[in-house]
Amino acid sequence: MDVLTGNSNNNNATSKGEKFKEKSTTIIQLSNPNLKKLPVDFLYHIGLDTSGGDLEKRFGDVRLVVVGGCHKRMSDFAKVLVERMRSCDIDVNEDCLVDMSEERGRYCLFKVNHVLIANHGMGAGSVSILIHELLKLLAYAKAGNVSFVRMGTCGGLDVEPGTICLTDSAMGPDGESGYEFFQCGKRARYPAEADAKLNSLIASTCAKFNRTYKIGNTVTSPDFYESQGRLDGAFCDYSEAAKLGWLADLAENKGAINCEMEAAIFLSLCQRAGVSATVACVALLNRLHGDQVTSEGAAEGALAVKALREILLDICLSN
Amino acid sequence: MDVLTGNSNNNNATSKGEKFKEKSTTIIQLSNPNLKKLPVDFLYHIGLDTSGGDLEKRFGDVRLVVVGGCHKRMSDFAKVLVERMRSCDIDVNEDCLVDMSEERGRYCLFKVNHVLIANHGMGAGSVSILIHELLKLLAYAKAGNVSFVRMGTCGGLDVEPGTICLTDSAMGPDGESGYEFFQCGKRARYPAEADAKLNSLIASTCAKFNRTYKIGNTVTSPDFYESQGRLDGAFCDYSEAAKLGWLADLAENKGAINCEMEAAIFLSLCQRAGVSATVACVALLNRLHGDQVTSEGAAEGALAVKALREILLDICLSN
Repeated sequence: MDVLTGNSNNNNATSKGEKFKEKSTTIIQLSNPNLKKLPVDFLYHIGLDTSGGDLEKRFGDVRLVVVGGCHKRMSDFAKVLVERMRSCDIDVNEDCLVDMSEERGRYCLFKVNHVLIANHGMGAGSVSILIHELLKLLAYAKAGNVSFVRMGTCGGLDVEPGTICLTDSAMGPDGESGYEFFQCGKRARYPAEADAKLNSLIASTCAKFNRTYKIGNTVTSPDFYESQGRLDGAFCDYSEAAKLGWLADLAENKGAINCEMEAAIFLSLCQRAGVSATVACVALLNRLHGDQVTSEGAAEGALAVKALREILLDICLSN
Repeated sequence: MDVLTGNSNNNNATSKGEKFKEKSTTIIQLSNPNLKKLPVDFLYHIGLDTSGGDLEKRFGDVRLVVVGGCHKRMSDFAKVLVERMRSCDIDVNEDCLVDMSEERGRYCLFKVNHVLIANHGMGAGSVSILIHELLKLLAYAKAGNVSFVRMGTCGGLDVEPGTICLTDSAMGPDGESGYEFFQCGKRARYPAEADAKLNSLIASTCAKFNRTYKIGNTVTSPDFYESQGRLDGAFCDYSEAAKLGWLADLAENKGAINCEMEAAIFLSLCQRAGVSATVACVALLNRLHGDQVTSEGAAEGALAVKALREILLDICLSN
């Protein structure tokens, strides 16, 4: 059983990517009747639109979307995926390393065979725009059985640095499950659950690569400093005891294993669209022991992020 | 009277920038006693730290910080500012176009004489990280009389496309003044007011360049689509009538002239640090007439953003 495609005739990477071109069965359906009224939909921030009528041809075979914060991290991911696919005799287009969103200056966007790769910047606002536009793109393209994975970094909660944290369910900084935002001035909250089968697939690939992983809940905060209880921001209006008590409560009573800034909005949008999604983040530090990412921590984190990249590349190639 | 420096002996650009090197009088003071306990403070996302002990020498003369969303827009701003300064015989270092934050891959950061230039990405989370780290950097550097300006784009509320919208006060999408976020799991709200003298300076420069401007309140939303009441996101769980009623209420009863995603957090952090700040955004469309930024709208917007750049370059050179 192929968790990414839902098909049982999953082959390995040497099948030259032909299986990715199989007819998909579950098309993304978006619950917005207004979209049908638009003569052309301009996906402003990614720089694509529906005017050419060619989105199905260009993007209809997308089965996996891999996103992460940094532009360079994701463009490197695309480059290495092209190399690996070529070494496996999988066909990739000559122009697959042309950044389709470069002109708009907001995100990078590459399509390597069946994998769409983009950077989402930092924080919920930036992620939200990208995911709205990618979901619309893939719905117009009639792509089916699509899975979304966010790769990133985080602060661990009672988790050793270097651990790959897989989100089960995301919560807000208030400890309440799901993602809170606004619709026309009114507060709304949507669930933000990851796909357990997708987590199992990444977990088994972590085990194959001998990387430590943990599955648990993720606290998504609107900023890096105060909302995450850090003591080292420009301002700090709370005590170290308040910080440690809050983090310990999240870990002990809410099942939280990590803090970051994007999982809740990412998972909630994917869940609303009915697409399988999860978040895999490398813990750069254990927040119960400190706040600062030192230069040594950043260097160690970069190595762990490379290991996570290898795990996700393996999934791109073998599923 | 020089609104940027607080000095009355303001000269024009031909003074070769010497006045920017005058001793500053008001040093940024941050209300976080924990910072004094750190042997080294790693400003992780901008890739600088306090270990070299040279921040005062490198950044102590900064008087103006100009930020905006796009990396390319801000690196272009830095390049043009260097050209203009050289043409005015103002000394600029050879290495002032070296991006100091490139290695960290999150933001760009340039220092051109007394002006610090960075991109902040999209949304409150991304802005928050940058401003926390810039405020700490400038406090360590003992920079004084610093002003912060965010340049960007927005949706106008009963405002014609191309208008430069200057924020008086920012509010959340709930119409409540200030910025709401969290501190150790508890909701907090801080005021988000712009500096009236800084707005007057930009307004008079707009007039000098024959550009239409408007000063009013800004609605800062956590996303581009649903929180701003757009009908063209991947999802839309409200009616067009609900959207128009909400936007009209903001314009008529809250003094709102535009919607965007960054002003409230940007102004609230600057206000807490006691630094003068404002937000100048080009309206790409009138939200009472639509939601989509078309390719023509984007092209027109790009021209208006260039005009705003000229206005801010003039301020960099003459203040």
